[in-house]
Amino acid sequence: MIRPENDPMIPHLTTALTGPLQDLEQRILESSTQIEYWFRSQWQEHTPPFYCSVDLRNSGFKLAPVDTNLFPGGFNNLNDAFIPLCVQAVMTAIDRTCPDARNLLIVPENHTRNAFYLQNVSRLATLMHQAGLNVRIGTLIPTVTQPTEVAVPNSPPLVLEPLKRSERRLGLEDFDPCMILLNNDLSAGVPEILQGLHEQFVLPPLHAGWATRRKSNHFAAYEEVAQQFAALLRIDPWLINPNFGVCGEVNFQERAGEECLVANVEALIAQIKVKYLEYGVKDAPYVIVKADAGTYGMGIMAVRDASEVRGLNRKQRNKMAVVKEGLEVTEVIVQEGVHTYERINEAVAEPVVYMIDRYVVGGFYRVHTARGTDDVLNVPGMHFVPLAFADCCTTPDHNAHPGADPNRFYSYGVIARLALLAAALELERTNPEEA
Amino acid sequence: MIRPENDPMIPHLTTALTGPLQDLEQRILESSTQIEYWFRSQWQEHTPPFYCSVDLRNSGFKLAPVDTNLFPGGFNNLNDAFIPLCVQAVMTAIDRTCPDARNLLIVPENHTRNAFYLQNVSRLATLMHQAGLNVRIGTLIPTVTQPTEVAVPNSPPLVLEPLKRSERRLGLEDFDPCMILLNNDLSAGVPEILQGLHEQFVLPPLHAGWATRRKSNHFAAYEEVAQQFAALLRIDPWLINPNFGVCGEVNFQERAGEECLVANVEALIAQIKVKYLEYGVKDAPYVIVKADAGTYGMGIMAVRDASEVRGLNRKQRNKMAVVKEGLEVTEVIVQEGVHTYERINEAVAEPVVYMIDRYVVGGFYRVHTARGTDDVLNVPGMHFVPLAFADCCTTPDHNAHPGADPNRFYSYGVIARLALLAAALELERTNPEEA
Repeated sequence: MIRPENDPMIPHLTTALTGPLQDLEQRILESSTQIEYWFRSQWQEHTPPFYCSVDLRNSGFKLAPVDTNLFPGGFNNLNDAFIPLCVQAVMTAIDRTCPDARNLLIVPENHTRNAFYLQNVSRLATLMHQAGLNVRIGTLIPTVTQPTEVAVPNSPPLVLEPLKRSERRLGLEDFDPCMILLNNDLSAGVPEILQGLHEQFVLPPLHAGWATRRKSNHFAAYEEVAQQFAALLRIDPWLINPNFGVCGEVNFQERAGEECLVANVEALIAQIKVKYLEYGVKDAPYVIVKADAGTYGMGIMAVRDASEVRGLNRKQRNKMAVVKEGLEVTEVIVQEGVHTYERINEAVAEPVVYMIDRYVVGGFYRVHTARGTDDVLNVPGMHFVPLAFADCCTTPDHNAHPGADPNRFYSYGVIARLALLAAALELERTNPEEA
Repeated sequence: MIRPENDPMIPHLTTALTGPLQDLEQRILESSTQIEYWFRSQWQEHTPPFYCSVDLRNSGFKLAPVDTNLFPGGFNNLNDAFIPLCVQAVMTAIDRTCPDARNLLIVPENHTRNAFYLQNVSRLATLMHQAGLNVRIGTLIPTVTQPTEVAVPNSPPLVLEPLKRSERRLGLEDFDPCMILLNNDLSAGVPEILQGLHEQFVLPPLHAGWATRRKSNHFAAYEEVAQQFAALLRIDPWLINPNFGVCGEVNFQERAGEECLVANVEALIAQIKVKYLEYGVKDAPYVIVKADAGTYGMGIMAVRDASEVRGLNRKQRNKMAVVKEGLEVTEVIVQEGVHTYERINEAVAEPVVYMIDRYVVGGFYRVHTARGTDDVLNVPGMHFVPLAFADCCTTPDHNAHPGADPNRFYSYGVIARLALLAAALELERTNPEEA
């Protein structure tokens, strides 16, 4: 098996080191104490989700989040050297949310045949155990009716157990957890067995699942956060914020809502053109059309011209119509595309930053090599080779140049934390108990 | 310069891996979730000091703290890989104590010619800066009347500035800190300039200095903690607790208090003999006689028989009579000696564990090679070669044997945290504001 996370190579990045992004990194770096002070005050007002991963795009002139995952997989892709950082962050999160906790139940996704995902669950279970909790894993898979061992590459097997529900509590046979950690994004809706638990901490809360969550809510909150942050640093918020629009009533199969899509794509591309002119960017603007609820890169389209969303053919419509678990797409977000100029050995590299509680605990690059040339890349759920960050994003080197690894990673950690803060706002605003 | 902390060698330890200590490590390991739960509940009741280092002794049958430092130097000796762990712990400590902090003043010891100590101050300043604070260094040295650069090997120079006192606040020219971090153990008493600050956080508090602190208070608190912990694990508390006695009125120059010393040494050696018999230990019992207040390994004596403290010659009496900064020894602690059986390449190795807030952030071995054969070892304050732990003490490997590195380091972290908890109790009980 390929284990690039153990590769001692320090990523060599070919991002353009001149122009606005370096200015932005310089600005972030020299403002680090101001930034940390600002984050501290924000976290006095808002509660971060238990964990979070953020996909970033670095275009050389713009650094922005494009996706914020509240049920992150891929913990197995982080640099092993930073496991202690994860454990410490988990300890702090437990101290804050539920210091009396002894028992933790993890409810993972139902992908029992995805080795990469199982490694993620195994890593998560180990982190929680090392932080001092008794950890067991309860599955939503209906066919698992008794404790079942599942083999995990390079790890001891996982034991999946059937969930057991009493009137007010969820657990396993002889296991009554105080905390339930969801690593399942609830794309298929909130199962009844998870509803109406009044005496247990469910982390993240049920409304963080895709049954409730909308990317447009997230990016609306992110826009506010980015504006505040940009004012703090006296920069153009656009340099860290991808513009977006929403269409609420799209039916790809029935070709409904096409005009809304076309209008949004046109407006967004026009906005981007103005900005590209302002900054002298030569690239062609593009937008991403994707489901407002859902994940996993299905139902996603890159568009350079509004005409491309007119009269989609059957194959394109089918692709866009459903995301994971057959969820139908009716709400669509149209988001400014951010070019990826980071390259590792000629392959496109997208940074993903991981956070636990308010802390950045590491990240990795999704390195997209030529697909299909290597069978490992075709395993479901893994269309890339992960390359762990050599650094953990928290230790800027004020004596090095802005593009130096620790400083680039620090900038990544700052932008990812802006998305984390946006997620906190989003969850506050969509909390059904506050409504 | 020797920089053994960058040596990739993983320490090879020759500690006896059979007998009681392995049992103890096994017990600690299998109880890790219970232990972490217990620590969480303790930290709900008690506040850890800002930072702390604990010297441990590992005799193969006993693992115990022998010294707890509330103004730790030596942060430069920690494994560079764990800097992020330190930064995260500092962030948590700031969140808890003073989230509104922007400016931090460090008040170090006056050793401006000790390169090792300056590297420690430099490391500390960097950690605090990376955690998001504006950091400046104010010195108690009366001859520093304006900002003065001091060269630090392998680091940018430090700027020491004269302290500036207003009626209620301490700061520097144009610098009004919210937090004052003492890295000065106040052996010479609490300077007036630090007294009566009512609107600033002084960490650790002034009564953590040697003007107030007594080792006997610490080890009395530790004894309680060790007893509770031993009950939790159902082990003999002696396996983690060094016995001790105190003589309050000793004057080495005038030979006063000799009878008290003799009686305490006799009693302690008799106690140890009983325990050695119980556990089949063949070693010769010994005790350590040292100042109850003070640090730095001056005024310390190893004794195997009470007759050795009778009729000390002039040289011995002079050695015992004063510790750092001319402080006179009148109170003496007699502590059970714990043999050191850890060896690295034939040299004696003593583990030192570092903590920030409630978190273990690393440690190193003091490796005592033959002294005097290498000039570097004769630099003041550095009579040993530091070898950074390869692990950070928080990630036990439940699938490996109890003596495996991560597990040994985990045990070290647990015992060190018991001493940290004892320090918290000690500071509560000696707090003049509570008296």
